[in-house]
Amino acid sequence: MVAEQSKKAKTEEKVEEEQIDEELVLSMEKLQEIQDDLEKINEQANDEILKVEQKYNVIRKPVYDKRNEAIKSIPDFWIAAFMSHPALGELLTEEDQKIFKFLSSLEVDDAEEVKYSITFHFNPNPFFEDAKLTKTFTFFEEGTSSLAPGTTIATATPIKWKEGKGLQNGVSHDVKIGDKRALPEESFFTWFTDDQHSENEINDEVADIIREDLWINPLAYFNNDSDEEDSGGDDDDEEGDEEDDDEEGEDGEEE
Amino acid sequence: MVAEQSKKAKTEEKVEEEQIDEELVLSMEKLQEIQDDLEKINEQANDEILKVEQKYNVIRKPVYDKRNEAIKSIPDFWIAAFMSHPALGELLTEEDQKIFKFLSSLEVDDAEEVKYSITFHFNPNPFFEDAKLTKTFTFFEEGTSSLAPGTTIATATPIKWKEGKGLQNGVSHDVKIGDKRALPEESFFTWFTDDQHSENEINDEVADIIREDLWINPLAYFNNDSDEEDSGGDDDDEEGDEEDDDEEGEDGEEE
Repeated sequence: MVAEQSKKAKTEEKVEEEQIDEELVLSMEKLQEIQDDLEKINEQANDEILKVEQKYNVIRKPVYDKRNEAIKSIPDFWIAAFMSHPALGELLTEEDQKIFKFLSSLEVDDAEEVKYSITFHFNPNPFFEDAKLTKTFTFFEEGTSSLAPGTTIATATPIKWKEGKGLQNGVSHDVKIGDKRALPEESFFTWFTDDQHSENEINDEVADIIREDLWINPLAYFNNDSDEEDSGGDDDDEEGDEEDDDEEGEDGEEE
Repeated sequence: MVAEQSKKAKTEEKVEEEQIDEELVLSMEKLQEIQDDLEKINEQANDEILKVEQKYNVIRKPVYDKRNEAIKSIPDFWIAAFMSHPALGELLTEEDQKIFKFLSSLEVDDAEEVKYSITFHFNPNPFFEDAKLTKTFTFFEEGTSSLAPGTTIATATPIKWKEGKGLQNGVSHDVKIGDKRALPEESFFTWFTDDQHSENEINDEVADIIREDLWINPLAYFNNDSDEEDSGGDDDDEEGDEEDDDEEGEDGEEE
């Protein structure tokens, strides 16, 4: 009898334990369902935000085109903006700067969801044949290619260097002994020609700075060139400083 | 005559120079106008994105509430999720963990544009009188207060510690000699009670992790507790690992 009772008690205990387990499993399943719902909402939110961004990319496009037109009538605008940018200015070797003298226009194309590109337009120059050089970053979404989804590839126009020019011919090695400031060893064109392939997002610092900083407001940098290039900048001090105050948000506070 | 001619030439030169200057000034003004237009478009874009985010915050709210209800039926859910989070787990001292045993619910309120709050709900416990502790981050926009626009203030419920408890009474100094792992010296409640005042955005790492990581998907961390707490986790290996694969995006790749 005692054994019987004990057995019965054990069975009851087990039943109770199983019930608790079952309840817990059900709770976990319910929680998982709710979490899945949340994820769906998050995806919708992301899609909608992306749509807003795309819409404004389209709205911005003609204004950017108009801006590029206006910039054309300002001599050496892009090289000045590049050189006055605290990070980009450091990137250009002396030889790069000679090449950038021929940079007539810059263009960032953000209009497509899955890629963006940076195009440098050049006037005829003694360095290369190309009238424009484009660096493109392409994201591969699921089902769009045989590549793993999320793969990002960076490609660049192969530069047709003229004879005696190019990365093997001095662009990278132009540091003169006794130069007043240490020049970077790597050419900007080393970055440009460096093809990348990543299974994740590529965090390309140079591309990000051009796209998210210089391109957003190059005028802020152009106006800020008093310490770099004083020739011809006779209204630097008056106008330049005022602009600085207006554009302080560019330092990242607004974002 | 020669002097006259020279004077005339100089005047012509000056006129020409002034014309170039004038053209440049006009170009610069036009460029500034276009840049201002772009900034207006950017503001509109930001406003619209904020509206989408607010809309989805409202949509998410009842789902989060439902999730909190479901979590209530899973014992020790929040402490397990906290402890299994690679960064948050490191933050809790041994004494904190004893307190977190009484954490019944967590709530992140993002619904308002200019502030967000994190609320910890506690069951009656021997440590403090409060049933809930809230940490709030408030941003002050232009014209909303006498504070400089952009100021952010972090405030917290003052904790009513019971006698002999609290930061002066052991929460911070519970490290036992010969403990199997080095425990953090600072209590989680040191972070909680630390009021902040900044003229810019506050980058509060702990708050960001709770709000943008743990709160987004606490289940991913709860399921991942096999290395920390093995008791009762009998379906860890099957379900847990599957979840891990699904939730890999949480590591930041998707963002």
